[in-house]
Amino acid sequence: MSSVPLTREGTAALDAGDELAFLREEFALPPGVVYLDGNSLGALPRATAARVRDVVEHEWGESLIRSWNEHGWIDLPVRVAALLAPLVGASVDEVAVADSTSVNLFKLLAGALRLRPGRKVILSEPDNFPTDLYVAQGLASLLGGVELRLVPPAELAAALDESVAVLMLTHVDFRTGAIHDMAALTQAAHRAGALALWDLAHSAGALPVDLTGGEADLAVGCGYKYLNGGPGAPAFAFVARRHHEAFETPLTGWMGHAEPFAFDPRYRPAPGIARLLCGTPPILSLAALECGVLTLARAGVDRLRRKSMALTDLFVRLVAQECSGFGLELASPHEARARGSQVSLRHPEGYAIVQALIARGVIGDFRTPDLLRFGFAPVYLRFVDVWDAVASLRAVLLGREWERPDYRRRAAVT
Amino acid sequence: MSSVPLTREGTAALDAGDELAFLREEFALPPGVVYLDGNSLGALPRATAARVRDVVEHEWGESLIRSWNEHGWIDLPVRVAALLAPLVGASVDEVAVADSTSVNLFKLLAGALRLRPGRKVILSEPDNFPTDLYVAQGLASLLGGVELRLVPPAELAAALDESVAVLMLTHVDFRTGAIHDMAALTQAAHRAGALALWDLAHSAGALPVDLTGGEADLAVGCGYKYLNGGPGAPAFAFVARRHHEAFETPLTGWMGHAEPFAFDPRYRPAPGIARLLCGTPPILSLAALECGVLTLARAGVDRLRRKSMALTDLFVRLVAQECSGFGLELASPHEARARGSQVSLRHPEGYAIVQALIARGVIGDFRTPDLLRFGFAPVYLRFVDVWDAVASLRAVLLGREWERPDYRRRAAVT
Repeated sequence: MSSVPLTREGTAALDAGDELAFLREEFALPPGVVYLDGNSLGALPRATAARVRDVVEHEWGESLIRSWNEHGWIDLPVRVAALLAPLVGASVDEVAVADSTSVNLFKLLAGALRLRPGRKVILSEPDNFPTDLYVAQGLASLLGGVELRLVPPAELAAALDESVAVLMLTHVDFRTGAIHDMAALTQAAHRAGALALWDLAHSAGALPVDLTGGEADLAVGCGYKYLNGGPGAPAFAFVARRHHEAFETPLTGWMGHAEPFAFDPRYRPAPGIARLLCGTPPILSLAALECGVLTLARAGVDRLRRKSMALTDLFVRLVAQECSGFGLELASPHEARARGSQVSLRHPEGYAIVQALIARGVIGDFRTPDLLRFGFAPVYLRFVDVWDAVASLRAVLLGREWERPDYRRRAAVT
Repeated sequence: MSSVPLTREGTAALDAGDELAFLREEFALPPGVVYLDGNSLGALPRATAARVRDVVEHEWGESLIRSWNEHGWIDLPVRVAALLAPLVGASVDEVAVADSTSVNLFKLLAGALRLRPGRKVILSEPDNFPTDLYVAQGLASLLGGVELRLVPPAELAAALDESVAVLMLTHVDFRTGAIHDMAALTQAAHRAGALALWDLAHSAGALPVDLTGGEADLAVGCGYKYLNGGPGAPAFAFVARRHHEAFETPLTGWMGHAEPFAFDPRYRPAPGIARLLCGTPPILSLAALECGVLTLARAGVDRLRRKSMALTDLFVRLVAQECSGFGLELASPHEARARGSQVSLRHPEGYAIVQALIARGVIGDFRTPDLLRFGFAPVYLRFVDVWDAVASLRAVLLGREWERPDYRRRAAVT
C-alpha cells in the first residue's frame, strides 16, 4: 500500500485488484450493511440456504429415516471434518466435527489429564476466552485435585513445570486479536512433558494454522465464526494421531462406538478420531456448516490471510488518517502479521460508539470494558467497506453520537 | 373396538372418527409410504420447512448477529423448554433444552453422584438403551471408584441399597416398548436414599409422563423422535426444582453462566435450570425443534395416548388376524397400556422382512437380533395405514420375500 492519503476511490481500486472478489457474490449480505462481526457469526453463504432447504424438505421430509444412508447423514461429520482438516493443518483422520466448542474442550481436557497421569494442573492465562476457563473449572471441580492455574502470557513458559498436564491457550485472543506463537509455546509445553491444547475459534478460516507443523497435541474450534457455518454450528476437535490409541474421551456416546449399530451394551471406542463423536449430530446445522466450509475453502488459506492482513492494515491506517484526536487507541498488535483477522480499538465510550455504528449499518461488537471490536472476514468484505466503516466511525465521533441516551443502555447481546 | 374381523373399510371408518385426524395435514408425508419409524425420526411438520427457511434466509442472512436479540435466539432454549415441560409433567423452570441426549445424561449422572456423596453406584438394567450405558461407563471410568451396576428389571428394587447414588432407567424400552412404573421405581429409589433418573426418549410426545407426580429427580429426553424436531434435534434435561440449588453440572459453558455476557473469568452457575445449558446451541436445529413441539402440543397428550393405544391395539389384532402361522411372535406387552407407542415382533428372518417391507413403502426398523419394530406416531398416522402395513406384512410373508438376496445383507443403518 502506498503512503499517500487514501480516498474512497483508492480503496475501490484495491477491490478491483482483489483476487478473492469473486467470492463475495457467494454470500447473501444485506444491503446497506458493513458487516464487521464475522468473527462472532459469519455471514450466510447463498449455497447454504438452498442446501438447508433441500435437507429439510427433500431429505428429511421425503426420505425420512432412510436419509441416514440414502443421503449420507451418517457420514456427514466425517465429510465436514475432511473439508476442515486442511484449513488447520491437520490430517483428515485427526479432526472430528461434533457438539459445541465447550463440550469438545471438556472431552479434550479430560483426555489430556488421562494422558498425563500424576499431573494435575491445567495451565492457561487469565485473559483466555471465559468459556474455556469455565470448562476447565467445571472439570477440575468434578475430578477434584485438579487445578486450573492462570498466569500472564509472559510467565507461561516459566510456569510449565512437571505438575502441568496440559497448556490450554486460545491461538488468537478474542479481545485484541493477538496471535500466540503456537509452535514455540507447544515446544515449551513438550519440554516440560505437558501437552498443548489450542482453541482455534478465532483462527480457523481466518489465517493459516499449522497444527501438524506446530506439533500441537489437541485443538478445538468453532464452526460459526470465520467458517460461516451458521448460528450455533457444530464445533470441531483435533487430536494428533500419535495420541489416538491412548486417548480416552469421557463422553462416550453411541456415535463414538466401534460398532454404533451393534447395540452392544459395553462401550468400545471407535478406532481413531471417531471416538470423539458422542450423540446424534444436529443434521440441519451440520449441513449448513458443510456449506460454510465448502464456500470458504474455495478461497484458500493463503489468499485469505493476504487479504485479511491488507484489510486490517487498511483499517488501522484509515482510523489513524480519519479519526485521530478522538481518544481512540489501538488495542490490537500494530503489525498485521501479529494479529488475527480483527482490529480492536479502545475508547471509554466504546459501548455507545458501537451502538451508534450499528445504527449506521456498521456492525462490529463491544467487549467489556472498553473494546470496540471489528472483524474482517476476507472472504466477503471489500476494501471499500473498510473505507465506509471508518467514514461512519468518523461521523459518529465528530457528531459525539455516543452521547445519545438510546445508545447508552446495555442490551443483552451486543 | 369390536371383535368382528376388521377390513380395510373398517379401519377407514376409525379414521372418520379420529379426533386427531386434522393434524395429519400439518405434516409433509411422502406419498405411498406408511411411516412406522417416527420413534426413530419423527416426520417433518409443514411449519418447520417455512420456519427454518425464515431462520436461515431472513434471520441469519439479513439480521446476522443482531438476531440474538432481534429474533430472540438467546431465548430459544427457554422457549422450547416451556413448550416441552407440560408434555412431561414438569414445570417450565425444570426443563433445559441443550446438546444431545447423551451429553445431557452425562451432566445429570455427574450431578447425581455429587448430590449423593459417598455413594458410588449407578444402577441400571442390561437392556437399557446402549448409549445410556456407554455414558455411565464413560463417567465411571473418568471418575474412578464409580460402578455401573446392571441387574434385570425384576431385581432392581432389591438391588437398591445404600451404595446406590442413582437409579437410571429408560421409561419405555426401546426394543419392546414396555413401560416401567416410574412412580413405583422412583419411590423404591428414594426409600434407599437414591435418586431416580429417567430417559424419556421413547415417552416424550407419545404418552403422558408425569415427572412431578412420579417424584422423578432427573430426566433426559430426545427431540427427534415423537417430538418431530428433525434429525439430531437438540435434547432436553429435567432437574426437579428441589435439587436446583445443590445441582452442579460438570459441563460449565458460557450459556449456563449467571451472566453470560459479563465475560467473567470465573464460572458462576445461573440460578436454576439455566445452568444446564453449556455452549452455543445449534439455532437452525433448535428452531426446527420448536416447530415440532408446537405442532405436537396441539394434539394434547391425552388424545395422543388414546389414539396411540388404539393404533397399536389395531396393529396387534390385525397381525393376529392376517399373519398367523408365519412364526411371528409379539415381543411387546399384550396390554396397550403396558407399552409405549410401538409394537415389536420377533421373527428369525426379521432383518430381511423389514427390508422387504421398506421396499413396499412400509418403513419400520430392525433391532438386533430378531426384532421388527414398528412405531405408531398418533399425531400423523391413520388407522388405514395400520391396515396397509399389515397387508404388506402379509404379502411379504406369503411371498417369502425375505429369501430375496438383496434383502439379506446388512446396511449401515436400518
